[in-house]
This record gives sequence, structure tokens and C-alpha cells, in this order.
Amino acid sequence: MLVCFATQSACANNNDRSNANIDEQKNLPLVQKNAFTSENFITFGGKTIPSVTVGWESYGNLNAAKDNVILITHYFTGNSHAAGKYQLSDTTAGYWNDIIGPGKAIDTDRFYVISVDSLANLGVHDPNVITTGPASINPATGKPYGLDFPVVTIRDFVNVQKQLLTSLGISKLYAVVGPSMGSMQALDWAIAYPEWVERMISVIGAGEADAWTSANLEHWASPIKLDKHWQQGNYYDSQPPVDGLVASLMLITQDALYPDFFNQVGEQIGFSTSETGPLEDIRQTPSIVNWLKKRAQARAETMDANHLLYLVRACQLYVAGHQGDLKNALQKVQAKTLFLPAATDLLLMPYNVEKTHQLLLDSGKDSQLKILPGTLGHLEGVTGISKHAELINSFLNK
Amino acid sequence: MLVCFATQSACANNNDRSNANIDEQKNLPLVQKNAFTSENFITFGGKTIPSVTVGWESYGNLNAAKDNVILITHYFTGNSHAAGKYQLSDTTAGYWNDIIGPGKAIDTDRFYVISVDSLANLGVHDPNVITTGPASINPATGKPYGLDFPVVTIRDFVNVQKQLLTSLGISKLYAVVGPSMGSMQALDWAIAYPEWVERMISVIGAGEADAWTSANLEHWASPIKLDKHWQQGNYYDSQPPVDGLVASLMLITQDALYPDFFNQVGEQIGFSTSETGPLEDIRQTPSIVNWLKKRAQARAETMDANHLLYLVRACQLYVAGHQGDLKNALQKVQAKTLFLPAATDLLLMPYNVEKTHQLLLDSGKDSQLKILPGTLGHLEGVTGISKHAELINSFLNK
Repeated sequence: MLVCFATQSACANNNDRSNANIDEQKNLPLVQKNAFTSENFITFGGKTIPSVTVGWESYGNLNAAKDNVILITHYFTGNSHAAGKYQLSDTTAGYWNDIIGPGKAIDTDRFYVISVDSLANLGVHDPNVITTGPASINPATGKPYGLDFPVVTIRDFVNVQKQLLTSLGISKLYAVVGPSMGSMQALDWAIAYPEWVERMISVIGAGEADAWTSANLEHWASPIKLDKHWQQGNYYDSQPPVDGLVASLMLITQDALYPDFFNQVGEQIGFSTSETGPLEDIRQTPSIVNWLKKRAQARAETMDANHLLYLVRACQLYVAGHQGDLKNALQKVQAKTLFLPAATDLLLMPYNVEKTHQLLLDSGKDSQLKILPGTLGHLEGVTGISKHAELINSFLNK
Repeated sequence: MLVCFATQSACANNNDRSNANIDEQKNLPLVQKNAFTSENFITFGGKTIPSVTVGWESYGNLNAAKDNVILITHYFTGNSHAAGKYQLSDTTAGYWNDIIGPGKAIDTDRFYVISVDSLANLGVHDPNVITTGPASINPATGKPYGLDFPVVTIRDFVNVQKQLLTSLGISKLYAVVGPSMGSMQALDWAIAYPEWVERMISVIGAGEADAWTSANLEHWASPIKLDKHWQQGNYYDSQPPVDGLVASLMLITQDALYPDFFNQVGEQIGFSTSETGPLEDIRQTPSIVNWLKKRAQARAETMDANHLLYLVRACQLYVAGHQGDLKNALQKVQAKTLFLPAATDLLLMPYNVEKTHQLLLDSGKDSQLKILPGTLGHLEGVTGISKHAELINSFLNK
């Protein structure tokens, strides 16, 4: 097992709990991706994966009592790069850099913040992602698993995280915090291992994949399965189903945003219903479609289509606690909980966690809910997070 | 040109303005599909189609002054069967039968109600649909047009309707009323031919396909284009792209409904996140997905995939007035207008017609807007229409 907390140039060994370097000028942690391996990992579905390896990052220092740990669980298209940069020349920082860092809402001067790449991570070809999934080599055949990779669930992501944390001597989480698919992991943590979790923040989250959500997720899988290059997932020796993956990512982006965002982009790129190309030729598409496609094509370069199918399935199978009945599962929660759905979210609408929050209140639990204002849709909880920093900070001081 | 208003058994000639028979017991008009042909139809895009033929239906009697006409314009997956039955044994009536008929909100004892199949109508293989589109024979080649069929617009649907009405001696509409894509035609009518239109009701409608809507519509086209059987639209001599069409229809149904509907279906069919099939095998899908797919497969049987692409494009190119600038176009409106968006509509959200309504008010026009309550989503304006009958009836008496 490789464990690194180190500077950009050095990877320390397992016993080196040195802090990530801080670029004081930019108040930005410089971080490095580490790897954690679990042998003979048994999935929630009862299958054994001979070896799983996932990447992880950390920000801040683990204290002596090891009780200042905040776990960040990432969203569907994300990975463990939640904050900081790998090097100063990086054009972007981790996705929640606005709220994770020295003096920020999730204060790395106080907390040891850690984040882990999911199994079947979508960005498997991103050099900064380490994951195990259908694109990984199946040791039994020496070839990529493809659809022979077992179905994995949100609980499996949680269990990998727990093994990593345990390997670091950690047995308690000051908080677990995550957006979207990360919220699923956060709430499942609070039920699966209640004695671990003191605080749980679900951002743009869900208590379960209800029928609407389960059906809605399937539309993300459909374009991939329709791509002639998909070939039931056996495309690793041939051309991958890029067109299907791109169409899927286009839909995911649409689902994650609200009309305002698209209409602002439309203004910027000069979109008009009176464009001559789409009127003259059915094969041409409106400029806003071309914009969306170009964006998806760029993102698709580091992604794997089968991994997307596995993440869709993990989310479809999600019910917090993974024991069927949400109400009973929530009885186990010991953590203080905070739910932050977004008012304009079209993907995981507020009603979903409102129900979960109410079930917790009905059971006498300490739960709060605040609907995030804003017009960013689902992404109010990711790209729009800076506006809501104070809410998160206040809860962490509870 | 075949013009029929007749009973189920007889088709009268062009001069026979006899009323449709009424099944008094059920208060249900018995209707028949008629056909109207226009030669050398010139599209909004400037292309000539040698011959277009569309189906149409009517309910009620045309009065001597020919000033009691209400035109009903249909939605994306619909056709001119807005009310009544073709024969008493039909399992369902026309989609707005709850509000069209003797003594109903759109009272056929008073009004002559007429509805016309769109060009490139989706249900081209439905024996009760008559349309011209990419599946029609191109007289120049003797084979289906495929993608050689010209792009058609909402304005073209309007112009075909106007030709039909003119052929019947009609030159004024007491009202034009339509849901969804039908609302686009209704509002375009009021701008294109303002002297014709006295009242316009836009139900679950839009003033224009803004960038968000244009991009959103493209996801309906994507699965078809990805289907290996699509072959750039040249599939009429081989296997059609049924899987792509089914995936598209699944998404359309999802977009047209609200979570409550899916979750009620989920309860009825015993959907659960703990189903063993999807956990054990990535190739299996949750029961709610299977339900959605089965429904789409049944609908796909009478539909054509290329026609769907053309309807997507017609909607993508829509801006009321088809002159680019909506604000200026709306200056032409002479009709009293009523906008009825649905509160839970995820497809054409209320903001769209709220903007249009405000522009009309700002120009001193007589416009009303009422947001339909209910949890049916977009379909609040179709399957849920009976709840809103009084609103429509009141406006028609204005």
C-alpha cells in the first residue's frame, strides 16, 4: 500500500504524516495523489474482487488523537481531487477548493481532510485518478474485466474508504461531507457505521434512488449501450464507444444545470433559433448543441464508458443503509445531520432529502435542512459552493 | 383533396358539412380522419415539397358565417385525434376528449373544432395518422425521402393548417388552442396571421426554444443517431433503428412527467432499490426501467425514427413569429392570449411563457397567465387537462 501526503516532489512512506505543503501566497494546499490497495475485497453483492486499488488525497494534519478527520466523498463525474493543486501551474484546483483549505469553511488548519477515488471511477484515464473497475485488468484472464466486473454499490465505496481510514489508524470521523453521489456515501456512512460518524452533511443529495431517479439515471446509460462500438462492454481491444459516452455526458451536463446557465452560455456564443445551418440541413445542429458536444468530447477523453454504466448502477441501487427500508435504516444514525438540497436542482430535487430529513426528525434525531438558493441547478452544490460556505462552517462548529 | 366530417361509415364529399355523429349516451363524437393535400408546398426554409398530405378531424358544426372555428394544434407525440372516438369500441378517445365535446369546455354544440396532423408526424405508421415526412415516398426517386426531406418548422405546420382552413372557406379562428408543441403553433399563428386569430391559448407552452430547450431536445435525437440501424436515415429497406427510437421515447416520457408519477408507478409495480437482478448482473435493469421500456416499445410500433428527428428540429427552430426577435414579433398579436404553464413542468417550465406573457403585457396586449397546479409535470396539460377545463371555458367566453 502506497500512502502519500507529501509535497509535489516527494511521496512519503506510510509512517510519514507530514502535512501537504501550503502555497502561502495563494492559501492553496499542494497535494499529491496516493494509492490504497485492498486485497480480496468482498462487494455488497457478495462477489470477491481479488485486488482493488483507489487513489486518495489529504489536506491538513491528522492530530495525535486522530479525531479531527473530515472525509469528503465525491460526485458522479468527480474524483478525490477535492481541494488544492498538484502543482502551481495547474489551471484549476480541486472542485471544492473554495471551502476546503486553511481558514476556509472546512478549515485545514484544524481538520485533516481526506478524499478517496470511487471504485469504477469515471475518470479512469485521468493520470490523477486511481481506481479499479471494468477497465482494470482481471487477473483471472489478463484482460480488462468489462462486464465481468462485479456490480458495485455506494456501500462498496464506503467500505473501501473505511479500510483506508482504518489503515491510517483512524476510527472516527468528525464529519463526512459530500455532494450528489458523495451525499449518498455520506449518509450511507452514517447508517452503516454510526459509531464512526459525528456529523454528516449531504449536499445536493438523496436519501434513496426512488423510482423516478432510478429511471432517470438509465438515460445516462442508454447512449453508451446503443453505440455500435460498445459491443456489450468488450471494446478494450478496439475502438471505444466514444460517441455514446459523449452523448451520455451531454445529457449529464444538461441534467446538472438549470436553464439560466444554458441561456447565459447561449448569449455568449450567439445562439439563436434563427441559425441557418440547422434550418437548411437536418444533419447540422444548433450552436448550443455544438457547444455542449465539444465540452463533452473534451471530458470524455479521460473517461471510460463501462465505468459510467457501473456508476449509474451504483446510484440506481442506492438506498441509505442498503437494507431496503429507509425509515428503519435511519434509526441507526447517531450523527448530527445537515441536508443542503438546491432549490433549482432538476436531478436530485429537494423533495428527496426533505423526506429523509423528516424521517430523521420523526425519530428524534438532530437534523437540519436548508434549501440552497441560486440558479445553478444541481451544480449549486459544486461550482456554486462558495456561496454556501458559512452554512457548512457553522454546522461543523456545532 | 378528400374532406370528410362524416360518420364512422361514410366519408362525405367536399360540400358535405354534416356534423359528426354523436353517441348521445356517452356524449362522445364519433369522428373520422380526413385528408388534405397541398401541391408544391414551399417550406419556411424555402424548399419545395411536391405534394404534402395531412390528416384532419373535426367536431361540431361549422356555422353559416364560418366564424365559430376553434383550431386545436397537437403536441410532439400526438396527432389530430383530439377528441371523440373513431368507433365506440375504441379503448381510448382523443387526447383532449375531457374538454372537447358537447357541453364541454370547448363546446362542440357551439364551436366547429378542427385539428390537423403535423408534417413529419411521429405516428406515421398509425392507421389513423396521415402525414408527409421523411418516411414518405420522394416522387423524384420513388423511395422514401429519408434525410433528403426538407427541414420543416412550426410555421410550416401552421401554413398547412391555413391552407386547409382556407379550402373550407374559413378565414377567421375564434380561437387556436394547443398543448406543448401545439402551443408553439398556436402562438405562431397569432403572430403570422394576426387578423385570423381572435383568441390564443398556449397550454404547457413556450414562446421560443431558448438555448436550454434547444439543447434539451437534442437528447431525444441522440439515441436514434447512435443506433447502428439508423444509417444516416437510410433504413427503409432494412431494419429500422427501433432500439434508438425506444430509448428516445423513454427519455421523452421521463421529461414529460414529474417524480410523483414515477414513484406511484414504482409502488404499483413493486419497484425497490433492493431488487436482486440489477445487483447481481450489470446487464439487468431495475423494474421501473423495464416498465418504462415496455411502454416505449409499444408506442414505437407506429412511429418512425426519422420523423422524430424532424420534429425535434422543428421545435429547436421555434421562436414565435419565426422572425428571430420574439419581442418585436409579439407586437403583431391581435388575439387575446392565455398562457397555462404547469407548475411541475420539467420540460417547458413556466419561466418560458412568463417571459412571453410579460412582453405582451409590456406592449399593451390583452394577455393572461395562470400556472396550472398539479403533480403531473408537463402532462398536466394533456392527461391532467380535465382539472383545468373551467379556465379554458372562461377564456373562450371572454
